[in-house]
Amino acid sequence: MSGIVEKRLRDLGVELPEAIEPKVAKIKAYNQAGSFLYVSGQVPQWNGEMPYIGKIGREFTVQQGYDAARMSALNVIAHVKKALDGDLDRVIKVAKLKGYVNVTQDLAEVAAVVNGASELMVEVFGQEIGAHARTVAGVSSMPFNVAIEVEADFLVT
Amino acid sequence: MSGIVEKRLRDLGVELPEAIEPKVAKIKAYNQAGSFLYVSGQVPQWNGEMPYIGKIGREFTVQQGYDAARMSALNVIAHVKKALDGDLDRVIKVAKLKGYVNVTQDLAEVAAVVNGASELMVEVFGQEIGAHARTVAGVSSMPFNVAIEVEADFLVT
Amino acid sequence: MSGIVEKRLRDLGVELPEAIEPKVAKIKAYNQAGSFLYVSGQVPQWNGEMPYIGKIGREFTVQQGYDAARMSALNVIAHVKKALDGDLDRVIKVAKLKGYVNVTQDLAEVAAVVNGASELMVEVFGQEIGAHARTVAGVSSMPFNVAIEVEADFLVT
Repeated sequence: MSGIVEKRLRDLGVELPEAIEPKVAKIKAYNQAGSFLYVSGQVPQWNGEMPYIGKIGREFTVQQGYDAARMSALNVIAHVKKALDGDLDRVIKVAKLKGYVNVTQDLAEVAAVVNGASELMVEVFGQEIGAHARTVAGVSSMPFNVAIEVEADFLVT
Repeated sequence: MSGIVEKRLRDLGVELPEAIEPKVAKIKAYNQAGSFLYVSGQVPQWNGEMPYIGKIGREFTVQQGYDAARMSALNVIAHVKKALDGDLDRVIKVAKLKGYVNVTQDLAEVAAVVNGASELMVEVFGQEIGAHARTVAGVSSMPFNVAIEVEADFLVT
Repeated sequence: MSGIVEKRLRDLGVELPEAIEPKVAKIKAYNQAGSFLYVSGQVPQWNGEMPYIGKIGREFTVQQGYDAARMSALNVIAHVKKALDGDLDRVIKVAKLKGYVNVTQDLAEVAAVVNGASELMVEVFGQEIGAHARTVAGVSSMPFNVAIEVEADFLVT
């Protein structure tokens, strides 16, 4: 691929994981409606392996949570690429990103965790396209008990 | 009604509950903005009764949670029907569905719970229209302490 | 300013806080995509002070949570005003509002808390424009351990 975003991925040395389809309930990993592309909440997995099972503040540190958030966001991007027939330059804007962090009670550093996803978006798509509105919450449990789930909505062409 | 989706509801033997308006804060059960119809988070109620008060993993099993999710999603569809003047065929796409499950800490089977909502959407609207992007989280509490809340965004005509 | 909404703010005696930009991860306080304006999850702060650090049901009552939700929503509106070059009359609709309440387990009055945000929207924008679809959840933790986070999506012109 020779797109601008693909070149940036190469320059950054960022590799995307395989875009794994959900196996349950006939849901979709991504869904386009009008000009919006919605990516389902992505967990930190790498080609089927899930290295972050547990809570931030118990099994994992905030820094490890940052890495888990980045891995989740790489899965988001992998699905966007698949949705757009491989052409990540069709992303007009990362509209909104949400991070749900699996935490112990009162773990206040949830934004620092989700920064792992937010900073990746800005690195990969650039500030203009990649900077997004964001919401962060610390929750009680996640599918598979993973440490974080990241979802994002994109404006695409 | 003689629509395609209505016929499917009849064939499936699926009955919709009464679409109950929120009683507080002048909020809306649904709200259309452009081509998008947003349905407020729906709880498992049936014509005013709330049979699922409590947490999955404590008062209720995952299978009961599945049933509660399905009931919540039936309320979502009831509101969509009302919003679209009774014509569910005006749904172009179930864009996004989110399930917040009221859980004990570390209850990992939250996706299995929300499948009760997701599978209903696919049954009722068909795979093409009904399959959606999804996010699931396990949370600490819910309005009325119900077991689950399901919200969904629709593309409509 | 001489707009309709500005006049309503004056008549209500409602003062907006300073619209504070996020300091982390190059994210945005608001982001417009097509006709939609997404405001990042806002916490209860007033020009940099954060008077609501803690949980509803422990450090704070439901009524204090209501006040915190209202303060969060004032920050939402402050950002909308900035996004729309000061002209709040460009809001066509408050499409969706979500409130994540930092709670102790089983705190069921989360809707009563988020009403502080919802009622403000209706006061400020009027019933027609301000009434919105809504989702509410009680969560384990929040950024800075604030008591609530409110996000909202707007249809704008």
